[in-house]
Amino acid sequence: MSNGANLLKSKLKENKILKVAGGFDAMSAKLVELNNFDAVWAGSFAISATHALPDASILTMTEFLSVTSRMADACSIPIIADCDTGFGGPSNVSHMVKKYESAGIAAVSIEDKIFPKQNSLLESGKQELLPEKDFVAKILAAKNSKVNENFMIIARIEALIAGLGVDEAKKRANAYENAGADAILIHSKKKLPDEIFEFCDTWNGKIPIIAIPTSYPNVTLEELQNHKIKMVIYANQSLRAAHWAMTEHLKELSTAKSLGDVKTKMTSMEEIFHLQEMYDIKKQEIDIEENLKKLGYIN
Amino acid sequence: MSNGANLLKSKLKENKILKVAGGFDAMSAKLVELNNFDAVWAGSFAISATHALPDASILTMTEFLSVTSRMADACSIPIIADCDTGFGGPSNVSHMVKKYESAGIAAVSIEDKIFPKQNSLLESGKQELLPEKDFVAKILAAKNSKVNENFMIIARIEALIAGLGVDEAKKRANAYENAGADAILIHSKKKLPDEIFEFCDTWNGKIPIIAIPTSYPNVTLEELQNHKIKMVIYANQSLRAAHWAMTEHLKELSTAKSLGDVKTKMTSMEEIFHLQEMYDIKKQEIDIEENLKKLGYIN
Amino acid sequence: MSNGANLLKSKLKENKILKVAGGFDAMSAKLVELNNFDAVWAGSFAISATHALPDASILTMTEFLSVTSRMADACSIPIIADCDTGFGGPSNVSHMVKKYESAGIAAVSIEDKIFPKQNSLLESGKQELLPEKDFVAKILAAKNSKVNENFMIIARIEALIAGLGVDEAKKRANAYENAGADAILIHSKKKLPDEIFEFCDTWNGKIPIIAIPTSYPNVTLEELQNHKIKMVIYANQSLRAAHWAMTEHLKELSTAKSLGDVKTKMTSMEEIFHLQEMYDIKKQEIDIEENLKKLGYIN
Amino acid sequence: MSNGANLLKSKLKENKILKVAGGFDAMSAKLVELNNFDAVWAGSFAISATHALPDASILTMTEFLSVTSRMADACSIPIIADCDTGFGGPSNVSHMVKKYESAGIAAVSIEDKIFPKQNSLLESGKQELLPEKDFVAKILAAKNSKVNENFMIIARIEALIAGLGVDEAKKRANAYENAGADAILIHSKKKLPDEIFEFCDTWNGKIPIIAIPTSYPNVTLEELQNHKIKMVIYANQSLRAAHWAMTEHLKELSTAKSLGDVKTKMTSMEEIFHLQEMYDIKKQEIDIEENLKKLGYIN
Repeated sequence: MSNGANLLKSKLKENKILKVAGGFDAMSAKLVELNNFDAVWAGSFAISATHALPDASILTMTEFLSVTSRMADACSIPIIADCDTGFGGPSNVSHMVKKYESAGIAAVSIEDKIFPKQNSLLESGKQELLPEKDFVAKILAAKNSKVNENFMIIARIEALIAGLGVDEAKKRANAYENAGADAILIHSKKKLPDEIFEFCDTWNGKIPIIAIPTSYPNVTLEELQNHKIKMVIYANQSLRAAHWAMTEHLKELSTAKSLGDVKTKMTSMEEIFHLQEMYDIKKQEIDIEENLKKLGYIN
Repeated sequence: MSNGANLLKSKLKENKILKVAGGFDAMSAKLVELNNFDAVWAGSFAISATHALPDASILTMTEFLSVTSRMADACSIPIIADCDTGFGGPSNVSHMVKKYESAGIAAVSIEDKIFPKQNSLLESGKQELLPEKDFVAKILAAKNSKVNENFMIIARIEALIAGLGVDEAKKRANAYENAGADAILIHSKKKLPDEIFEFCDTWNGKIPIIAIPTSYPNVTLEELQNHKIKMVIYANQSLRAAHWAMTEHLKELSTAKSLGDVKTKMTSMEEIFHLQEMYDIKKQEIDIEENLKKLGYIN
Repeated sequence: MSNGANLLKSKLKENKILKVAGGFDAMSAKLVELNNFDAVWAGSFAISATHALPDASILTMTEFLSVTSRMADACSIPIIADCDTGFGGPSNVSHMVKKYESAGIAAVSIEDKIFPKQNSLLESGKQELLPEKDFVAKILAAKNSKVNENFMIIARIEALIAGLGVDEAKKRANAYENAGADAILIHSKKKLPDEIFEFCDTWNGKIPIIAIPTSYPNVTLEELQNHKIKMVIYANQSLRAAHWAMTEHLKELSTAKSLGDVKTKMTSMEEIFHLQEMYDIKKQEIDIEENLKKLGYIN
Repeated sequence: MSNGANLLKSKLKENKILKVAGGFDAMSAKLVELNNFDAVWAGSFAISATHALPDASILTMTEFLSVTSRMADACSIPIIADCDTGFGGPSNVSHMVKKYESAGIAAVSIEDKIFPKQNSLLESGKQELLPEKDFVAKILAAKNSKVNENFMIIARIEALIAGLGVDEAKKRANAYENAGADAILIHSKKKLPDEIFEFCDTWNGKIPIIAIPTSYPNVTLEELQNHKIKMVIYANQSLRAAHWAMTEHLKELSTAKSLGDVKTKMTSMEEIFHLQEMYDIKKQEIDIEENLKKLGYIN
């Protein structure tokens, strides 16, 4: 079950930056895998969006876990779960870690905002930080509840999002590393990666640093790597590409005379049959038939 | 709750062909609504695909209902649920109708294949039909279990898919109408709509006929309407458009130097915030603040 | 769907005290109904216990709603849902009200403790109250989200549990009534109902008062009624009776030579078949057979 | 995760008869463990009853798995899942085995009746058997889908229930053993164990035999063991004891003047707090506090 965690740990030891892309259901996660990414980010913004509900702690842990488990069942690459603020206090975090680890998820990310949270990139959204001590308590609870050493607790720092500056971010990074976090995710909504780079260049921690360049998309992999970033997460672009394509297709279709008139591109059913392992059922049927022959039930 | 059923019934009385597009989660269903379709088709192929599982009665009623309920919660237009073979015998169909109706779904479609079924368009898939009598029993059970007269039981005929010809299809259509079906969905995997048109032109039933032109995409709305078809379902194209776009995006991203280098189109986060009603939380906060002022809690 | 809410409202208008007993799954709820209680209390302590998880906001809204919906599906009497602190802030309460109301629940109770909460009767448990203003915000959100006027928002006051006295309880009761609560649940862990009675006798509110006499079990219905209490909830005794009986039975069985040697009482399978409507399937089968005869399929 | 399976396998090697009692939720399963049984039987009759739904394949695999997973999370002893007919054909059985094994269940039992099934002890219930070949196909699918060798596939034979006699039962037992079943569950609804004993005494299989003496409760453990039975399942008595106790309690309470007047026995809240590990949260809080002290956050 914890293959995902072990695999992620060993990938982190390689001398390269890990590339992670966002999934929001088992199919999109599988597409991330098929396109050679190192892991899947099960992001709360994208998952909330597919439920047509706000990214504001409205979906429950049960609902997020249910989607994320299906990704883990479908994929061989590790799944990293965006667990927002951890769904409550330390006892909720503890319960969450047990459930996510036993579902075969590789890592959970919790962020130091107040529950219920709002999306970090929401214009004029509320971005209140939890006192450092209270978030440290959550990390302690998380660490104490995991079974496999390699299962990762990622501490996501929202100090830059909240406008509190790099020093506060570094202070918190130290605290979280001391408390037992396995990695630091440093988030920013600036259009340029300057404060991210300042953080990376001056923080002295030993655990890996993770970045999500949604708001500073022009940063290159090389730059990220030069600033000691060990993992880059492209969190929600696959969702937004899907949303775009469906909108274009449905817009055209709504006024078309026939399906055949619609020019937007789409995958063939056969290819999707492959993804969902439709043909495996046929293989399995043949397999069973051969065994039934050996057992003398059919000729 | 049964607004969906009432709305669908009244739309069917209008002198036009209803256009229905497929959704597979609440967001895609919402996009169908936003692009002015009359209803959403919650198809089992598309929903199974997003779970990365075969369209072969592997997902349970619980899982289909869970997705379909979320569509009904998110949309104002009616949701039509593809319920495959009805998840078992007449007692399962009866249970299913109660659950789907009370979840606010407008209609359920059940097909006359043997459980567990395989996708109708699967090359060399098994397409065994249930004896007519046994499917009539399911319709009787369904009819007997609905509360709102307007909740629709759609009988989907697979006789053409199974290669049994138009006469068998018409015989079954009569039987299903007599048993109480509210509409007939006639399915074909031919590249041209000839057998569909023959069925429509020669069958004397009074209930609406529904078609899914996946395999004969060049048929026009006008042709369908001329052959007495009352509803056309574009079952899985939105899924396939999303799959295409994500694949293109992820392929490019996997070798790009930066997110900014990727040229595939994507929707802005703001637009998705709107779809998921992220800003309603802000409105609600303001509303509550005003009330707190009136009550004297804040100035 | 909202029959439960309408029924509860009309019962509250009768000149009697309503008797409500706790259920924790659909069967126990059904037993409450079969024994002539006015409504079922879907309590978080009992439901958490059957999940073998602490009554401390560990189970999510999804899990509580899932159990409570099944009660509503199984019962004709109203279901009153114990929703703890409302699963977060005002936006969570708003989402919760929509979900519970559309699932056919009659009423929700939310309490003015801090999330995550701990059971009110836990020896030396944490019992921190939420500031009045913040709880008023939750009531405003709840009120604003309900559709049926008769769907009840019960405000549960934990001031006595927290040791803050009757005056604080009355102050909060006024605030919650002004904000739109439909009833006040006043809770106490004293061995005698004195502070409950003081509250009831001196508070001037117009909405119904509800009591849960778990810790002061010797209070009589007449006394409660004399002190203007409109509803009494026996929250968890059915769970505790079930726990006792299973423990006795399993203890004996674990050392018995045969099942027949065990002297603890148990219900017959037949009676349980009746409760789960096993025989309705037979009735339905006969019904379908008769219709198949009429339609000429069988003789 | 698969500790349950390994533990069950090693217990089966001991020279004794294993005693298994029925659970229907996590609390009842925990009580089975606390009373020293070897394993928990997650029976479909009892679980259906607590959902107030017929034991007739109405609950889906998702719903059974959800209850059964919670038992596995709560217990250290193995959980044996009653999976009825396997929820469909071979491909459903295959999916089921993957899901149950990865949820930490120790064993699944599938029976050779036709889907949807009816309870075996239902007076005049339908008890049609699946052709031997078709059930062998399910066993082959099950065997092929398990990962841990020790995860058990129990083949439940309903030939005696269907009135087909011991010879048919033995023929099927041979077939199922050859196909790869790990144990045979032989079921009977006779008031005496004669046909069970005849089966056990004359069948020459090597895999363990399991019995459920619901209808012949006076058989002793010694007799069962003398007839080579390796495991006895007391399937539903705990449910029936709980049902009895709740009925008695609620009947009395419905006419009592006060809770204190009710004489039926019940467990204290404290004891249930222990079962649900309410005090572990306190322990965890103390633990976290100590760590916060060490880290300098509190004095």
